[in-house]
Amino acid sequence: MTASTGDVNVPRALSSTRVEAFSDGIIAIAATLLVIELAVPGAGDDVGHALREELPAFLTYGVSFMTILIFWVNHHGLFALVRRVDRMLLFLNGAALLGISFISYPTATLGRALPSGVEHARVAAVFYALVLFLTSGFFTVLWAYLSSHADLLDEAARSVAGPAVRRSLAGPALYAGATVAAAIDAAAGLVLCALVAAYFIVPPRHLRRGRSA
Amino acid sequence: MTASTGDVNVPRALSSTRVEAFSDGIIAIAATLLVIELAVPGAGDDVGHALREELPAFLTYGVSFMTILIFWVNHHGLFALVRRVDRMLLFLNGAALLGISFISYPTATLGRALPSGVEHARVAAVFYALVLFLTSGFFTVLWAYLSSHADLLDEAARSVAGPAVRRSLAGPALYAGATVAAAIDAAAGLVLCALVAAYFIVPPRHLRRGRSA
Amino acid sequence: MTASTGDVNVPRALSSTRVEAFSDGIIAIAATLLVIELAVPGAGDDVGHALREELPAFLTYGVSFMTILIFWVNHHGLFALVRRVDRMLLFLNGAALLGISFISYPTATLGRALPSGVEHARVAAVFYALVLFLTSGFFTVLWAYLSSHADLLDEAARSVAGPAVRRSLAGPALYAGATVAAAIDAAAGLVLCALVAAYFIVPPRHLRRGRSA
Amino acid sequence: MTASTGDVNVPRALSSTRVEAFSDGIIAIAATLLVIELAVPGAGDDVGHALREELPAFLTYGVSFMTILIFWVNHHGLFALVRRVDRMLLFLNGAALLGISFISYPTATLGRALPSGVEHARVAAVFYALVLFLTSGFFTVLWAYLSSHADLLDEAARSVAGPAVRRSLAGPALYAGATVAAAIDAAAGLVLCALVAAYFIVPPRHLRRGRSA
Repeated sequence: MTASTGDVNVPRALSSTRVEAFSDGIIAIAATLLVIELAVPGAGDDVGHALREELPAFLTYGVSFMTILIFWVNHHGLFALVRRVDRMLLFLNGAALLGISFISYPTATLGRALPSGVEHARVAAVFYALVLFLTSGFFTVLWAYLSSHADLLDEAARSVAGPAVRRSLAGPALYAGATVAAAIDAAAGLVLCALVAAYFIVPPRHLRRGRSA
Repeated sequence: MTASTGDVNVPRALSSTRVEAFSDGIIAIAATLLVIELAVPGAGDDVGHALREELPAFLTYGVSFMTILIFWVNHHGLFALVRRVDRMLLFLNGAALLGISFISYPTATLGRALPSGVEHARVAAVFYALVLFLTSGFFTVLWAYLSSHADLLDEAARSVAGPAVRRSLAGPALYAGATVAAAIDAAAGLVLCALVAAYFIVPPRHLRRGRSA
Repeated sequence: MTASTGDVNVPRALSSTRVEAFSDGIIAIAATLLVIELAVPGAGDDVGHALREELPAFLTYGVSFMTILIFWVNHHGLFALVRRVDRMLLFLNGAALLGISFISYPTATLGRALPSGVEHARVAAVFYALVLFLTSGFFTVLWAYLSSHADLLDEAARSVAGPAVRRSLAGPALYAGATVAAAIDAAAGLVLCALVAAYFIVPPRHLRRGRSA
Repeated sequence: MTASTGDVNVPRALSSTRVEAFSDGIIAIAATLLVIELAVPGAGDDVGHALREELPAFLTYGVSFMTILIFWVNHHGLFALVRRVDRMLLFLNGAALLGISFISYPTATLGRALPSGVEHARVAAVFYALVLFLTSGFFTVLWAYLSSHADLLDEAARSVAGPAVRRSLAGPALYAGATVAAAIDAAAGLVLCALVAAYFIVPPRHLRRGRSA
């Protein structure tokens, strides 16, 4: 417990451990809820045909599930360095969690729109990439806030925060590219989002050293 | 573990830690489930148009998500001071959790009713503000119960409970105002609820000292 | 960690703590998911009228929420005494969790059937009370299994298991009564289930001593 | 905390404990969400008739719930031996979790298709058994990865990994059989999946010694 004795606004025991456990819960639920939006073939439907029609939805489901897992890893990497929590950090973390738990909505929207005409699919893909852009952007804001409030960080972590801000820009930068691609071609936007996930899971070798989030 | 050796009604090990972890789970799920009530544009729908139509629902979603996060912070502040749990505290806590996990229902009701006529929107907004009023009221009841049962509190926390009861009245008082405003104008009621959330996240400077919930 | 060195079928570290935390998760989700089955008034609906029509569903929702909280308290009381877990205990616990996470289905069924004719309401009420009967019955089976496998219990708890089996019969006995009442009158069955919940939350004074689950 | 000092790609504190707690959350939610896909009888419906029509869905629900509990036990047995986590293990674990949280979809599909004609039921049953085959196959892949990366394991566990790979083949082998059976007869496929669950819960006596996952 890293009680924040100097901060009267946050309950004594609201350590980073506690905030992290609560955030873990929200992220785990967000990942698992994705499945609810998949349309189950109705009684009497041709199951094989219905499943083939859901293929785009399965695809967006898989990409979003893996993307949320990556957000979880990044969230964990960030809070592992936090010593105490203030109200603004709580609020910024809340905004990031709001983004993560919202992802199932653009995921379902894109899954249904992909086969329903170029125009609608592009709008849905831009919406999808934009939500990922904003959510990953909140991580950059979180890192920037921590780097300018070193007293919230573990002593050993204070030198890490500056470089972490720069590295955390990779997320929003890549998703900004995916948003632009989605405006041109919906499938290209989704493929780019999938590649971003793959990139964060198994990063290119020469980029590996020293990255933590 | 703060085993309650003198209380035969509650299992030995039902410490405040345990109740708090269980409550955290319920609150995290309540926040994440909000997204399920958003209507996903159907296959073939004009996605841009459908998303614009969902804007009121996105708004109530955001306000409720942040409100639930604040309830979590308050819940945590309260249980951080609790040393042992008796059946009545369990019951009152259950009532507060019932309120929190019910929030997604008035949230969805208001999101759909806002664009559907002044009259219905007002009823939905009153319902929404009323549920927040009752839920925050249960926190006052919880504080009042703790302040009159000092043996349930950490020794260091006993002097804090009295002032906490008074401070916890801010929630129900503000939501009572939002309920009245909602009866006059639905949008005004929702804006007030959003302002209450903002007030608890970043409280006005001169009110900051000494508030914990 | 109470590693079960002698039992090769269950992973070393599957202590009662771990099983309990996992069960807590399932029970918290079961309680929170209840809200999903409530019908949100559609866009353009008369909100006041629609909410009044949902009153029976609100009622069954509240009774089930409190009932699940009580199952959680009982589950916690039981596992607080368990020292190690074997496969049969895991299976019986799984059956109890299956019952608890199923409750939202009969709850929604009864909420919709209550206003839709005496005959259908009775079937739904019997179904509801029956699921609570079976679920509480699994707790008796769990206690009976523990009382005949004292090596799974904390040493201090071995004398408690026998009386706990008898006390745990109160649940199935009361729900059997509620099932019979429901077959005669649906509302009476639901009221009895609510009274059972109230009884377990604030038990009559002369019954309080010595009960733990 | 088994900090992975040598691995710069994974946050310092992302111990197996943390990954396991997060995975537990996802698995608990996956099991509990199954209930959402059951069709609640509508207002005015003949409840008894509607419940009888849902019987196949209840059946697939029960089999899937118990199967997910077994995946949890196996997941726990695996991570209990893990000392530190690298990115590839995170990714493989993510794939297994994706499989587990997807199960509710084929479960609902099969529940609805079973009574709707031999042809569709067979497709749904093959789909169901195939998802279980793939999910259990990811456990084998996880074990194989661990057995070839002994540095990720507890020292005491290194001799266990090889035999565990072979034993973990039982899952995919049995589900492959269930998939073939499902292609011939849907009900036979489901019965086999139920038997696989029963086999893992209460394994035949002569197979018990030395199995851990």
